[in-house]
Amino acid sequence: MSLRIPGPTPCPDEVLKIMSRQMIGHRGKEFAELVHRVTLGTKEIFQTNGDVFVLSSSGTGGMEAAVVNTMSPGDKVLSLSIGVFGDRFATIAERYGADVMRLRFEWGKAVDLDDVKKALDADSSIKVVLVTHNETSTGVTNDMEAIAALIREYDKLILVDAISSLGCIDFPVDKWGCDVVVTGSQKGWMIPPGLAMVSVSDRAWKAHAEAKMPRFYWDFTATKKSTDKDQTPWTPAVSLFYALDVAIGLLLKEGLQNIFTRHARIGQKTRDGVKSLGLSLFADEKYASNTVTAIKSPDGVDANDIRAMMLKDYGITLAGGQQALAGKIFRIGHLGNVCEADIDDVIIKLREVMPKFGHKIPS
Amino acid sequence: MSLRIPGPTPCPDEVLKIMSRQMIGHRGKEFAELVHRVTLGTKEIFQTNGDVFVLSSSGTGGMEAAVVNTMSPGDKVLSLSIGVFGDRFATIAERYGADVMRLRFEWGKAVDLDDVKKALDADSSIKVVLVTHNETSTGVTNDMEAIAALIREYDKLILVDAISSLGCIDFPVDKWGCDVVVTGSQKGWMIPPGLAMVSVSDRAWKAHAEAKMPRFYWDFTATKKSTDKDQTPWTPAVSLFYALDVAIGLLLKEGLQNIFTRHARIGQKTRDGVKSLGLSLFADEKYASNTVTAIKSPDGVDANDIRAMMLKDYGITLAGGQQALAGKIFRIGHLGNVCEADIDDVIIKLREVMPKFGHKIPS
Repeated sequence: MSLRIPGPTPCPDEVLKIMSRQMIGHRGKEFAELVHRVTLGTKEIFQTNGDVFVLSSSGTGGMEAAVVNTMSPGDKVLSLSIGVFGDRFATIAERYGADVMRLRFEWGKAVDLDDVKKALDADSSIKVVLVTHNETSTGVTNDMEAIAALIREYDKLILVDAISSLGCIDFPVDKWGCDVVVTGSQKGWMIPPGLAMVSVSDRAWKAHAEAKMPRFYWDFTATKKSTDKDQTPWTPAVSLFYALDVAIGLLLKEGLQNIFTRHARIGQKTRDGVKSLGLSLFADEKYASNTVTAIKSPDGVDANDIRAMMLKDYGITLAGGQQALAGKIFRIGHLGNVCEADIDDVIIKLREVMPKFGHKIPS
Repeated sequence: MSLRIPGPTPCPDEVLKIMSRQMIGHRGKEFAELVHRVTLGTKEIFQTNGDVFVLSSSGTGGMEAAVVNTMSPGDKVLSLSIGVFGDRFATIAERYGADVMRLRFEWGKAVDLDDVKKALDADSSIKVVLVTHNETSTGVTNDMEAIAALIREYDKLILVDAISSLGCIDFPVDKWGCDVVVTGSQKGWMIPPGLAMVSVSDRAWKAHAEAKMPRFYWDFTATKKSTDKDQTPWTPAVSLFYALDVAIGLLLKEGLQNIFTRHARIGQKTRDGVKSLGLSLFADEKYASNTVTAIKSPDGVDANDIRAMMLKDYGITLAGGQQALAGKIFRIGHLGNVCEADIDDVIIKLREVMPKFGHKIPS
């Protein structure tokens, strides 16, 4: 069995083993030491000296936390969306009463800086910009460094969904000046889903002090008060904290630069492999993601039929297309605990499966 | 090592074992079958034919979900609080703009029905009543059947925090006519923290249709749409779903009535044991909880010193007092995976520890 979706990603043995550890008191000394260690490690992986919090929720909860902690109803927000998850970020802000201007880019493409500049020039009342670093639904990675640099010129708050990239693709949060960055445990962190990690910059704290969107579970003030005491405000997902502690150890042992290089190498290998089968990449290759690759299904072939055969005949789970892309693409996740052999295996099996759908593999 | 706090509770071996299972796709057939099974089992334990959802968050998230899905800002709410968690429920409603009338009862006592009746008579604009079934901070169980019957006469919506009671103390949700009932995975369900389970009645759905408090992660409409397809709206805490599946099997095998009887028997044994040491129960014994017992520290003794010695010398973790009760009480959790021998052990060790604090054990 091989799980090749962009999260949950396969967990290393060390992580699975610690998941079966018995409970301890979440208000005791041992758990406090764990929270302390995990917070420091998370900061290192976020490449930030600011605050970092670990929330017991999925990544979407982290996105909601980013929004409700920094804005008030009526605030003007610019949403840069290149897919399903960019749209979701905008919807969350709208649900809480933000006035969202949605700048949407063709799926498969990255954010166009000129369009962003025009939008920022056209409306000086914009307070916050929402950006997706890596769009899981299309397999596109935005040039976050350039986008952040542009937004910084305009002095707007930058909230980033880096759920499927942080810890896989270089994202120096402080250096690039991003204010709230969100990620999730079941991606590059190599542990099961159920935790969201968020960073909070000084600028974000200033915005927080004025932010009137209602919040309780997600409230950064309560979370900081507890985190500063090496606790969590509400009962945490204890097992996932055990796992995070172990996984951070593995990540830091490999080293951030080595992890980024490995993901870049395997991402390229995936794209090369797909092209060698005569299949087309969905994403603009200039911005192709090193964590997830979307592949167009050949004309007249339902991508979900390819996925079904890969699962039934070879035990390989691939991801499907979402919303308008359902049946049109399938996706290979290559993030977290992944090596070259995992990708070789997928490509070899696709080489056997695709001809059954009438697709001709180039010789 | 013995963990005797009111959650997280010790997990059975079968639960710990499944926690180390590798990830599977959360959008695949196998996980859908698991969600289906878990939803049916949860309904059985809630004793409801209504909807039940499993949210990836701690219990506090479930409380927030109950509030934001059924109310609009400005709604008049009656909060019946007998401790820390009752106060928390009221605070959540206030944060989202509800107009909360706080009816607070002396800590250690239960809700007084006459006071509730007076409050409901005095203000016909009350739409919703917030109640704690079992107050973890004081070890008091409210007479939920009688409270619910009274509120039903006035036709108000009833939201119940049953986090530390459901699955331990009988709570037939439909029979008693409660509208949204919330519990958490790390209590009677015998699995690690990270999931909240909530039931939603037809009346709650009617309220939901009008409810304007903002929500995205907690939204019952999105959750129902996914649950009806045996999915979750956002990536779920997969390992905890594995564990819940196993734990529900254990609970239903023991049988709900047997579980309730066991908790009643062990609760009584705990109180008898504490009294045999010449210590005083904090809670009014008429309403003493069968899941957690709060014990007054003898005059001049800091309860946290007793806890520290129990942990250091005997490896037994007890809970402390919260807020105004810090240092004044300690608490023994006896819920979930607990048997008589666990309580014998605590009492035997307290018999050795208490004289070191100058407390005289009756002969």
